Amino acid sequence: MTQRGTLGVAVIGAGRMGADHVRRIDEVISGARVSAVVDLDPERAKRLADGIDGCTAYTDPAAAMAAEDVDAVLIASPGPAHEAALLTAFEHDLPVLCEKPLTPDAASALRVMEAEQKRGHRLVQVGFMRRYDAEYRKLKALLDSGQLGRPLMLHNRHRNAASPSGFTTAMLINDSVVHEMDVTRWLLDQEITAVTVLRPTPSENAPEGLSDPQLVLFETDGGAIVDVEINVNCGFGYQVKAEAVCERGTARIGEEQSLVTDMAGRWGGTIAQDFVERFAGAYDRQVQAWVDATRRGEVTGPSVWDGYATAAVCEAGVRAQSEGGRVEVELIERPAFYR
Amino acid sequence: MTQRGTLGVAVIGAGRMGADHVRRIDEVISGARVSAVVDLDPERAKRLADGIDGCTAYTDPAAAMAAEDVDAVLIASPGPAHEAALLTAFEHDLPVLCEKPLTPDAASALRVMEAEQKRGHRLVQVGFMRRYDAEYRKLKALLDSGQLGRPLMLHNRHRNAASPSGFTTAMLINDSVVHEMDVTRWLLDQEITAVTVLRPTPSENAPEGLSDPQLVLFETDGGAIVDVEINVNCGFGYQVKAEAVCERGTARIGEEQSLVTDMAGRWGGTIAQDFVERFAGAYDRQVQAWVDATRRGEVTGPSVWDGYATAAVCEAGVRAQSEGGRVEVELIERPAFYR
Amino acid sequence: MTQRGTLGVAVIGAGRMGADHVRRIDEVISGARVSAVVDLDPERAKRLADGIDGCTAYTDPAAAMAAEDVDAVLIASPGPAHEAALLTAFEHDLPVLCEKPLTPDAASALRVMEAEQKRGHRLVQVGFMRRYDAEYRKLKALLDSGQLGRPLMLHNRHRNAASPSGFTTAMLINDSVVHEMDVTRWLLDQEITAVTVLRPTPSENAPEGLSDPQLVLFETDGGAIVDVEINVNCGFGYQVKAEAVCERGTARIGEEQSLVTDMAGRWGGTIAQDFVERFAGAYDRQVQAWVDATRRGEVTGPSVWDGYATAAVCEAGVRAQSEGGRVEVELIERPAFYR
Amino acid sequence: MTQRGTLGVAVIGAGRMGADHVRRIDEVISGARVSAVVDLDPERAKRLADGIDGCTAYTDPAAAMAAEDVDAVLIASPGPAHEAALLTAFEHDLPVLCEKPLTPDAASALRVMEAEQKRGHRLVQVGFMRRYDAEYRKLKALLDSGQLGRPLMLHNRHRNAASPSGFTTAMLINDSVVHEMDVTRWLLDQEITAVTVLRPTPSENAPEGLSDPQLVLFETDGGAIVDVEINVNCGFGYQVKAEAVCERGTARIGEEQSLVTDMAGRWGGTIAQDFVERFAGAYDRQVQAWVDATRRGEVTGPSVWDGYATAAVCEAGVRAQSEGGRVEVELIERPAFYR
Repeated sequence: MTQRGTLGVAVIGAGRMGADHVRRIDEVISGARVSAVVDLDPERAKRLADGIDGCTAYTDPAAAMAAEDVDAVLIASPGPAHEAALLTAFEHDLPVLCEKPLTPDAASALRVMEAEQKRGHRLVQVGFMRRYDAEYRKLKALLDSGQLGRPLMLHNRHRNAASPSGFTTAMLINDSVVHEMDVTRWLLDQEITAVTVLRPTPSENAPEGLSDPQLVLFETDGGAIVDVEINVNCGFGYQVKAEAVCERGTARIGEEQSLVTDMAGRWGGTIAQDFVERFAGAYDRQVQAWVDATRRGEVTGPSVWDGYATAAVCEAGVRAQSEGGRVEVELIERPAFYR
Repeated sequence: MTQRGTLGVAVIGAGRMGADHVRRIDEVISGARVSAVVDLDPERAKRLADGIDGCTAYTDPAAAMAAEDVDAVLIASPGPAHEAALLTAFEHDLPVLCEKPLTPDAASALRVMEAEQKRGHRLVQVGFMRRYDAEYRKLKALLDSGQLGRPLMLHNRHRNAASPSGFTTAMLINDSVVHEMDVTRWLLDQEITAVTVLRPTPSENAPEGLSDPQLVLFETDGGAIVDVEINVNCGFGYQVKAEAVCERGTARIGEEQSLVTDMAGRWGGTIAQDFVERFAGAYDRQVQAWVDATRRGEVTGPSVWDGYATAAVCEAGVRAQSEGGRVEVELIERPAFYR
Repeated sequence: MTQRGTLGVAVIGAGRMGADHVRRIDEVISGARVSAVVDLDPERAKRLADGIDGCTAYTDPAAAMAAEDVDAVLIASPGPAHEAALLTAFEHDLPVLCEKPLTPDAASALRVMEAEQKRGHRLVQVGFMRRYDAEYRKLKALLDSGQLGRPLMLHNRHRNAASPSGFTTAMLINDSVVHEMDVTRWLLDQEITAVTVLRPTPSENAPEGLSDPQLVLFETDGGAIVDVEINVNCGFGYQVKAEAVCERGTARIGEEQSLVTDMAGRWGGTIAQDFVERFAGAYDRQVQAWVDATRRGEVTGPSVWDGYATAAVCEAGVRAQSEGGRVEVELIERPAFYR
Repeated sequence: MTQRGTLGVAVIGAGRMGADHVRRIDEVISGARVSAVVDLDPERAKRLADGIDGCTAYTDPAAAMAAEDVDAVLIASPGPAHEAALLTAFEHDLPVLCEKPLTPDAASALRVMEAEQKRGHRLVQVGFMRRYDAEYRKLKALLDSGQLGRPLMLHNRHRNAASPSGFTTAMLINDSVVHEMDVTRWLLDQEITAVTVLRPTPSENAPEGLSDPQLVLFETDGGAIVDVEINVNCGFGYQVKAEAVCERGTARIGEEQSLVTDMAGRWGGTIAQDFVERFAGAYDRQVQAWVDATRRGEVTGPSVWDGYATAAVCEAGVRAQSEGGRVEVELIERPAFYR
């Protein structure tokens, strides 16, 4: 791969997420092409690959990664398959964009971390795409500027119109609040040290057995307090809001006001109905940033450390949900490699 | 009347507006009482007076104004009856709050102006109640502070859900836009020198024969340009908005955001359905300010000059509507008495 | 007192709060007058009384309450003096508007409750004035309408530009969060059953020794979760915001948007700098509602039970602050008298 | 060119606009590459071309268009050079994205229109990029849906922090209001039939001799009335706002609320300082849409008819500015080719 050549990407996983990334690289992203699609289901891989000029279908990730025209790997397979795919990519020294979660638990994340460190240089960007959302980036830039002083609290709202079938109480933490865990760590540049979960009487909209909504609280090693309303059956739409309360002011994002109508006795606007509407731009920017960095020979964005730390906070969060009270987060010391 | 005694008020006119003022003085206003209610219809006057301790019903305004317990007059009868009531109040040297319009045309307003000047001191406050609205007052204070520099343009929106039956195209000017005429003169402290009216194809909501909405344009002697969307069958509610565009910034009022909901796929709030909801506070403050000033022996607020100037602009506006093009406003020179 | 006569009010306490109520009754309120001003400091009482026609100064509350022209009592003295003044008012069977707190602790509130019950009818309205704020009333009406379904969470922000000198960590609960306790109980029509307090590293704006800001959490007997950001040295102004998260939507208040400017590279508006600017209307409406009800021979508004229950939650809150963890609230069973 | 091959683009003009398009095609756009850069100044063309793999510098547009690897042309040279470049592209039957204005006046636009018709199929997309702005597209979709009924009025604000040196009063129309002309025609799907211009006393911020701001009024053949505040020295930033007033409601765009702060006594956000910040996304989407359509063998977007009609409205606008009063727009009958 020359520095300015087109990046050949192998997409691992041809499900909903993988197919969306294939479409994105083909139609939206500049400087990359899909060279390989990998799926255990050969039919599914072939259907996706057939739509793309010069793209080959595989069932074996290792075979795809060994191909001449593959310069980088995008992992969008189910979480339990990530560890093996990552280790294979490391063998080929291929840069990886790995959808979140890095791996399903902290122990496996630690193994990936050790393997990456053995390569001697970073290879992995983890798919915490909120870091590429325009509004979150403005908030981050403002916090980093120091204009508002030190952050004291961070209030978050995370609402979905309805949870998909099969969604469990633990998934509220592992699939949903995991985003606020990453956002908290990134915005504040602090680690989360304890988690508490308060559970109101569930909403009538929540499926039988799902304790929804919940109020999830983080404490950080920088002395900040973070609250997250997670509310995955709110009924009215998809909303992600954040407000950082700092020593000299507050800043908030997440108010959608792009089209306001006055009609039938009401003023206001529509609420996005899913994360695609709210975060499509963030996904695009995430992949473009990864392609651009990879073509420059760099690895940027959320690291394996971020994937590991978030997995550890998730484990504490799920325990806090089920046991009640405050649960401390246990992290290994951060390797110099990830500083 | 001692300075701190309770002000006895005669309310002339027991229709909707008069009855509302009677209720206001009885229930809301501090330092005043309704001593007399006057209406040509003796039954209507009596019904209203009976609800108030120590209040007498009259059919003759002159008789009411001669009564011992009447210290001041509030005129809320139909416009054509104003001139006679004002002249009678002048004979008794009674302070007056006169509902707008002062009189139906500029010629009669001039006669009232001459009569008031003969008394040697101001007696009349004209009921342009927007000057007592909290938002307009903030805007006025900001403009007067000079922070924004000189006003260059003023954009206005004036919308009603539906026009009352019998509402004519001329009433768009005389009953509705008259408020923006007063607001323009007051906010900018400038006289209106010309009026132009642009008429789109009428809305399907407008009753047969009513040319609604319209875009009404003023030029002022201070070189400002003012536009007014008058739209009295907008269907969705009552809205009054203004934006002053100045040399160093703009300022706007009229966004109602006191309760915001997220529900059924939409965020936003309700729109007021009539002027009472929007301007109830302004009516209260107007009458309280008049009572307070009268008890101090002062006359403040919009003057007979304001009533006259607005009548002259209305006459130009109605001509501009019917004849098209730009119509100049003709005003007498402002008497020193009204400076 | 005849039903429609002017209500003669004795104001107990001539400090800042008392003086403000004297001015309010004199200048704003309809149907009431200040007949008596009581203060331990005879000079202070006299100075205030001298400005009002027919108003007498007293140093002894009992003497004032025994006066012919006193029909009702407004208690605005320091909290520790409330119990004695209330019991004296009960002896004279006088209706009372008692500034919050009813009394400084739950035990004394219980004694007042018993004494009032012995009179056989309610005499006391407690001064939780947020219930008279226009925005909170809209929110309450919306929740009561059932349109949004059952409330699940209530998020609150309570910010002051700076705390007065001598403000202690306990006063964050007793003087500030006490308002959210009342608001929670009133909006949700539920009792608070437990309090948890999370304390971030204090802001650099907080005076030495003051743990500010804090995140205070309530659980209610209806299964709702409530969070309160209390932040009394936020530096930028006075803000009170609330968002009710319900089964079918959310509703929020506290966004001040009455005048928006575009200037010097920024759009937006000013933030109120103290509670007077934000809640002046609520104080006026509270006193007017009390005067109107009293003249009708009724007692409405927050009751002694509300004063007691709030005192009990405050006690739990202060313990949660100092001891950490979750503290349960202990209430006696609610007497039928207060249902 | 195969349907899915990468589109080779010749960019004509290596000034600010051309350089920005070269960067865009190189870094942002998917499916296209810059094969040629053309500029009269060989050094300028070379500097730009040197940064791009496989890109050749030219001084003669015809030579570039004759090159093997040029599939399409993007014209970003000064307006007076457009006609010749367009006619050359027509000779090579190359699809063109032509920056606005199509040509400097209606007469030359007519000549281009005739030449394109002779080719028998559309080749040109005109660079009215607001049609690709996300907010304008939402507004267009809402109007087209019919939910709001027929549009009656369109209010527009177009503000720049400061005008570039050499900006003339006529350029207010030709360079700035030209966008609202296109937006009006596109949003309403109506032609503009008359223009009126009202000029307040110029702002102290306007350079000597520039009559700024102005209120520009359009009438349309569908009976709508449109007003445009054009204000190119407003001092505080770049703003483009629009409100469509329809029979059943209104809709507005242009309120930037992506990051709101509370700080130093004020709430609000920053105002974009130039059109790049506001419309960068629109430029990207415009070029991507052109590349995508071209690769599919289609021509979409604003046509030569749109370029001609806007030029005719500009001519009327400049006359209305200088002569005062209402000036009618004269258009040829719309050829069937452009329906």
